[in-house]
Amino acid sequence: MGQAADILIRNAVVVTVNPDFEIIENGAVAIKDGRIDFVGSDGAGNPAGARQVIDACGGIVMPGLVNTHTHLPMSLFRGLADDLVLDKWLTSHIFPAEAAHIHPDTVQAATLLSCAEMLLSGTTACCDGYFYENFVAEAVAKAGIRAVLGQGVIDFPAPDCPEPEKNIDTAQAFVNQWKGKNARISPSIFCHSPYTCSVRTLQRAKQAADKAGVLFQIHVAETRNEGENTGIGQLRSVAAYLADLGVLGPNTLASHCVWLSPEDIAIFQDTGTKVSHNPESNMKLASGIAPVPAMLAAGICAGLGTDGCASNNNLDMFEIMEYAAKLHKVSAMDPIVMDAETVVRMATIQGAESLGLGHLIGSVEPGKAADLIVIDTRQPHLCPLYHPESHLVYAVRGADVSHVLVDGQLLVERGRLVDMDVTAVMAEVSRIGQKVAKTDKHHQ
Amino acid sequence: MGQAADILIRNAVVVTVNPDFEIIENGAVAIKDGRIDFVGSDGAGNPAGARQVIDACGGIVMPGLVNTHTHLPMSLFRGLADDLVLDKWLTSHIFPAEAAHIHPDTVQAATLLSCAEMLLSGTTACCDGYFYENFVAEAVAKAGIRAVLGQGVIDFPAPDCPEPEKNIDTAQAFVNQWKGKNARISPSIFCHSPYTCSVRTLQRAKQAADKAGVLFQIHVAETRNEGENTGIGQLRSVAAYLADLGVLGPNTLASHCVWLSPEDIAIFQDTGTKVSHNPESNMKLASGIAPVPAMLAAGICAGLGTDGCASNNNLDMFEIMEYAAKLHKVSAMDPIVMDAETVVRMATIQGAESLGLGHLIGSVEPGKAADLIVIDTRQPHLCPLYHPESHLVYAVRGADVSHVLVDGQLLVERGRLVDMDVTAVMAEVSRIGQKVAKTDKHHQ
Ligand SMILES: [Zn+2]
Ligand SMILES: [Zn+2]
Repeated sequence: MGQAADILIRNAVVVTVNPDFEIIENGAVAIKDGRIDFVGSDGAGNPAGARQVIDACGGIVMPGLVNTHTHLPMSLFRGLADDLVLDKWLTSHIFPAEAAHIHPDTVQAATLLSCAEMLLSGTTACCDGYFYENFVAEAVAKAGIRAVLGQGVIDFPAPDCPEPEKNIDTAQAFVNQWKGKNARISPSIFCHSPYTCSVRTLQRAKQAADKAGVLFQIHVAETRNEGENTGIGQLRSVAAYLADLGVLGPNTLASHCVWLSPEDIAIFQDTGTKVSHNPESNMKLASGIAPVPAMLAAGICAGLGTDGCASNNNLDMFEIMEYAAKLHKVSAMDPIVMDAETVVRMATIQGAESLGLGHLIGSVEPGKAADLIVIDTRQPHLCPLYHPESHLVYAVRGADVSHVLVDGQLLVERGRLVDMDVTAVMAEVSRIGQKVAKTDKHHQ
Repeated sequence: MGQAADILIRNAVVVTVNPDFEIIENGAVAIKDGRIDFVGSDGAGNPAGARQVIDACGGIVMPGLVNTHTHLPMSLFRGLADDLVLDKWLTSHIFPAEAAHIHPDTVQAATLLSCAEMLLSGTTACCDGYFYENFVAEAVAKAGIRAVLGQGVIDFPAPDCPEPEKNIDTAQAFVNQWKGKNARISPSIFCHSPYTCSVRTLQRAKQAADKAGVLFQIHVAETRNEGENTGIGQLRSVAAYLADLGVLGPNTLASHCVWLSPEDIAIFQDTGTKVSHNPESNMKLASGIAPVPAMLAAGICAGLGTDGCASNNNLDMFEIMEYAAKLHKVSAMDPIVMDAETVVRMATIQGAESLGLGHLIGSVEPGKAADLIVIDTRQPHLCPLYHPESHLVYAVRGADVSHVLVDGQLLVERGRLVDMDVTAVMAEVSRIGQKVAKTDKHHQ
């Protein structure tokens, strides 16, 4: 504690998400040099003379939410095409729109928009995978959010890599460029999927990620027929196939994982592979219901994600928490599964751990980075307040977030972005969107 | 058009929900004497000299949402107990809390809170069933929201009717008191369920509703074992049992209807019985997934509802729309079911029709009551805007509602309640909530 804090957040209900899931009524959090310096009771124990005091007005302070699966530039296609079968949605709308409109300028504009949406709704860290990730990174750095960013690898000509044989080089160049460059940005490699990447590509990409010591991301078992599409046939599962190739492991984050069998879950458990669960995307695209309670029971580290805005259609992690809790209750016909505490852990500390950032973020504990959010509970839909963790999952919505800090830097104050001209960002994306609409088949 | 309008809403994307689901870009809506007087293009066609002009700033104007199933005073128990099996939740928490804390004062305070929450999130009409409905009605009248209000009937001692044999008299007295008293309030009779009401009670209540020409509400087939609990055994379904008793029909609104067989759906179709679908409550309580696409295919009129705040835990109908769309997609493994237009219709015109109010509300058409909402689309999560109906279901949240009118009266302006001191309402409910917490087993 020693010296004066930079920021003191007081008059708060602190949901620490520490190992005991301690909740401090009338609590305070002090921040110094971007780190959490003090967590405890408000009043006598407060560090003296903070330079800035934020009055939480009795609201909730908690770790910022961690969105473990995004495709940030895809906010450009939010609501472009819905309610379609996957194949038609992709081949008639999303792929043509990407081919025609994804380039460095549009990637930067749409990423800024996504960062604005995430920060305003309480997300302080995300894990992304897309093309032109270099430009995603520039926009993310500008917005100030924390992120793991994966350059996309696919065995087809990509917008930023027309020669597929160079895809690993492109990804490695991205990792080299961003390694150690920005304290809030961790580069990563993102292989799109087992059905769009060859054995050689998967293995080279994983080896490159291992060598660089970064996260390896991949979509796994999102749809029921993925095995057939991968050409591995009926004999083995996608999980077994990937395990045999050596691309599972503690630095592998597998997104979706809808169609995992009990044997697949055991493989994930044995290899220490992490999971990103995306309930809203899986529901909207009718992919299926991931066996998340079984994964958690097996001790697998699973976080929550929104997926891209083309398949959700927003980036609100409070919504995701509520979907995760309710979907598995009705799926299991058991109202006890996925209780509020479990879901809050998934959206914070487990998300952080799944990205390899559990030492730095995901809970309100002294020494961790000050990635914190304040929720204004003085609203009809949050009254009365019996159990904070229940409200976080079942009643709070993104719009209730009043303050957001990343590394102790105040990025959202009283519900407004401090450093970003969001009106200009929206105007730019709307302008691009008008061009997208003109080339979309719906609109012709 | 003739004379000057009272209010003109201009610069809007008007989602009319008329039979053609017409959407008017650059549209305007004029209101005169509480009714919609003009719907069309903004500009030259506008009625001259409106007394008040609301600039929608390019946002969406649509019919106010219709919440077809609520228990308004239960906002008092929001988040009191979650993640429990139904039996323990009810008998250890909700029933004792109701017995100890539900009386006229608490009913009024919690109902005002619920009305505030509904209005602020774009709901202009609700259908309620509870006890002390007289006091619910007083609070609803004060708030100005439109409502169908059903006095609860149950064959156990109720807080407001300790002698069960008088339950029909109590309900009839309520209907007589409120019939024709307030243009926005339609009285109704609410039999709790087939398993808490005897054959005689069900039939007397339905006859009383028919005689008075009001809506008859009842919970139907919420849980899988309801038939056994009703004592009708395995031979007949709950729907067949109710049909035989003569309590189904065009003025019957059956809530939940999770466990309807194809034969039951045919019975509903034949009798013209209406349905209130409550996806979030059914998911949270692990009741099951109602066969809504099959109901709609059979031509059954189905609206959407939140259920009470103890089992949801909020009253946001934009959330409900998104859940309805996504739940049935994943349940059917078909991303085409429950498309955005279908879901918007359910939340507006079909909801209105299910309450017997389809002639008056549920669409933006000349002659209908001016129950309208304006959505502020100038927000990151609503950018870009390709298809308004997609945003309404998949991206808009209750907090995006900027203006709400009921019968042409402005109740919410720029996101704030015009006539209600919501801070005082919240303070009162929080005060009562502290007493509730003291008697709840969780808290002891
Ligand atoms: Zn994805
Ligand atoms: Zn109910």
